[in-house]
Amino acid sequence: MTTTKKRQLKLGAILHGVGGNIAGWRHPDAQPDASVNIEFYKQQAQKAEAGKFDFVFIADGLYINEKSIPHFLNRFEPLTILSALGAVTSKIGLVGTLSTSYSEPFTVARQFGSLDHISGGRAGWNIVTSPLEGSAKNFGKTEHPDHPTRYRIANEYLEVTRGLWDSWEDDAFVRDKESGQFFDPEKLHTLNHKGEFFSVQGPLNISRSKQGHPVIFQAGSSEAGKSFASKVADAVFAHFESIEQGKQFYDDVKGRAAAHGRSSEEIAILPGIAPIIGATDEEAEGKYQELAQLVNIEKALDYLGRYFDHHDFSQYPLDEPFPELGEIGQNSFRSTTDHIKRQAKEGGLTLRQVALQVTTPRPTFIGTPDKVADQIQQWFEQGAVDGFIVGSSIPTGLTEFVDQVVPILQERGLFREEYEHDTLRGHLGVPVPENRYAKTKVTTV
Amino acid sequence: MTTTKKRQLKLGAILHGVGGNIAGWRHPDAQPDASVNIEFYKQQAQKAEAGKFDFVFIADGLYINEKSIPHFLNRFEPLTILSALGAVTSKIGLVGTLSTSYSEPFTVARQFGSLDHISGGRAGWNIVTSPLEGSAKNFGKTEHPDHPTRYRIANEYLEVTRGLWDSWEDDAFVRDKESGQFFDPEKLHTLNHKGEFFSVQGPLNISRSKQGHPVIFQAGSSEAGKSFASKVADAVFAHFESIEQGKQFYDDVKGRAAAHGRSSEEIAILPGIAPIIGATDEEAEGKYQELAQLVNIEKALDYLGRYFDHHDFSQYPLDEPFPELGEIGQNSFRSTTDHIKRQAKEGGLTLRQVALQVTTPRPTFIGTPDKVADQIQQWFEQGAVDGFIVGSSIPTGLTEFVDQVVPILQERGLFREEYEHDTLRGHLGVPVPENRYAKTKVTTV
Repeated sequence: MTTTKKRQLKLGAILHGVGGNIAGWRHPDAQPDASVNIEFYKQQAQKAEAGKFDFVFIADGLYINEKSIPHFLNRFEPLTILSALGAVTSKIGLVGTLSTSYSEPFTVARQFGSLDHISGGRAGWNIVTSPLEGSAKNFGKTEHPDHPTRYRIANEYLEVTRGLWDSWEDDAFVRDKESGQFFDPEKLHTLNHKGEFFSVQGPLNISRSKQGHPVIFQAGSSEAGKSFASKVADAVFAHFESIEQGKQFYDDVKGRAAAHGRSSEEIAILPGIAPIIGATDEEAEGKYQELAQLVNIEKALDYLGRYFDHHDFSQYPLDEPFPELGEIGQNSFRSTTDHIKRQAKEGGLTLRQVALQVTTPRPTFIGTPDKVADQIQQWFEQGAVDGFIVGSSIPTGLTEFVDQVVPILQERGLFREEYEHDTLRGHLGVPVPENRYAKTKVTTV
Repeated sequence: MTTTKKRQLKLGAILHGVGGNIAGWRHPDAQPDASVNIEFYKQQAQKAEAGKFDFVFIADGLYINEKSIPHFLNRFEPLTILSALGAVTSKIGLVGTLSTSYSEPFTVARQFGSLDHISGGRAGWNIVTSPLEGSAKNFGKTEHPDHPTRYRIANEYLEVTRGLWDSWEDDAFVRDKESGQFFDPEKLHTLNHKGEFFSVQGPLNISRSKQGHPVIFQAGSSEAGKSFASKVADAVFAHFESIEQGKQFYDDVKGRAAAHGRSSEEIAILPGIAPIIGATDEEAEGKYQELAQLVNIEKALDYLGRYFDHHDFSQYPLDEPFPELGEIGQNSFRSTTDHIKRQAKEGGLTLRQVALQVTTPRPTFIGTPDKVADQIQQWFEQGAVDGFIVGSSIPTGLTEFVDQVVPILQERGLFREEYEHDTLRGHLGVPVPENRYAKTKVTTV
């Protein structure tokens, strides 16, 4: 009677209002105020829940200027919007980005702990270290910490928040009306952390929630990022151009996790994709072209320029080969600028073509629902991913994915038809961490 | 055809789970996990909204130890719970406490801005400076700033957040799909604040919401507190023992506000009350006695001791006159300890009586619904208050107040029967602040 269930895909939905494309808001179906429109977010979260997604995901950033893309200029803050979405959904996980470089661990441990209580165990925290230099200026700092320092801070920061989340053992609150005992003082623990960057006494003024600790996401693909993720993350948000690149990253991070004594199921690798679906491949291609044509070439040159130290590309002829740039763009987004230059050369592309392609790259997952489902299955079964975080480059993207692709994945036995759990850890199959104090006791008794 | 409407009461409901009384959770009707129970908070907020209250209020603190009262030990964080409540209510204001001593203005401006967008203009921020010494230890600080410094910080902090909230003029977002213009760069303003305590560049990555700025509450009753409140607050949370004390405070703060060029309607004085209601005065008295008897005398002595530098009161006989304490308790809660000593002497009270009275003071507002409504009307019409923030010392307190007292106040024309606005500023009748940059333009053109 026991049937071995196939390994199951994990799916998240990134909710980003008017989207990551600079011109997405101009699409005829777009609500151009979507990034601060609570009804839009509710509808999207409920759609993802109807599609039995593991979680919704809210990205973030701490610095804008007049060149930032529309969605970044004016959007909800992650913890507040996730708390609101928690009240209008019941099963789906709620994951948000929060930077360890510009916040206080006591406050962040509380806010994620509170979200986890509010949602009955559905909170997830995507730890970032803030890549944007300008962030420092919004937080009274004279300089943005360098990359290795940011990761040292993040490591200690997470140690502190995990310690605070363990302040109360799971059975600390006795609440015996008869005797008048509200809690067992032996099960209250004061952290007394004193480290290189943080000094936090505790205890936290909120108990452990159903998940023990909120689920930890991490997105760094650098050496320091992969090392941190493989040690601490329950899920990794990545970006792959191909199955091969995915497999390499997948094996690398799972191998590192194993070296930390972790099982490979304890860490999910989830690249972001933004599929475009059509009744035919031609229709899907048409949708992509429609989106690409909304991009204004001057804004695309600005967008391209940001990768190259704000280089002014308007000085070059648009329809001649991509210019020689010498050393420009070697300092900040090095791997991206190298990739752009290589693509331009190999494809013999003009400046206009490069700018439009960087701004609105052709999605890897595009075509009929069956074709997109095939791609997903292929990436999954070839061991490049544990699932995907699905974004929408066109406004109807999530709805189409849920209505047209999810049923195919379900039919193939690759994705759940009903929720089997009501916590994010349950959906992802990652264990609830034991309270450090409870553990010690078990070992010593 | 025009009728002059009577001046209207303003009513808030403080939601505090198992409540401010150390033994409230032991009441037979209490849900002893109420402070982290989302269903309880939803039900209370929806009840307050059914009662047409102006707002719900979530208090806060940043330090606990094993002697803290049950509600403080384990409770929701204000911004997350308010965001969740915003999603399940539609009219009622959402006010939360947040300290300016241990947070970052960029983050707090964003989170309250986001809550204001989520709720369609219902956010309020109760600014506190953190009275608890221990807070410093949870935020890596060697010492808690002194009282005057905390107020200097708060002043500058609010200046920064107000500046950030004005980053975008109200009509900055053009969102013209045809032309491709998302915003008008002339209506984006970078704060560039450099002050004594904060250096924040801006702009904020969220637009002004319906209220312009969230409503500002303030609760300090010290000289510095009153001076700050009269300058910046839209509403003041106070505590009065009598009408006379109320009138004095009311006239004082309204007079100070006038000196700042503000009209007296722009600042609402709202003391906290925790009425106990019964079908007869005797029944109400019985409810109070039932609550008082839940208090364990040892815990009451602990609670009393906290006001007197953690003095150990268990060394004295319980049923003899309150002990002579000399200099003990002169350093921290001076006005409270003076008040306790005076009451003990004048009433000829025993230690047991003092401890129980301090822990569970007899409410000023107690009796039948008519009697409580009479008291409210009297305080209001005699110019001691603009309304009240209603707390519940017994678990059914808010429900009874809404079902039994509110209809009487409505019948007397003292309180709204339907909401006339959908923002908190609308309910309170406090104006939407103009954007500082828009204002400048009007004056100079």
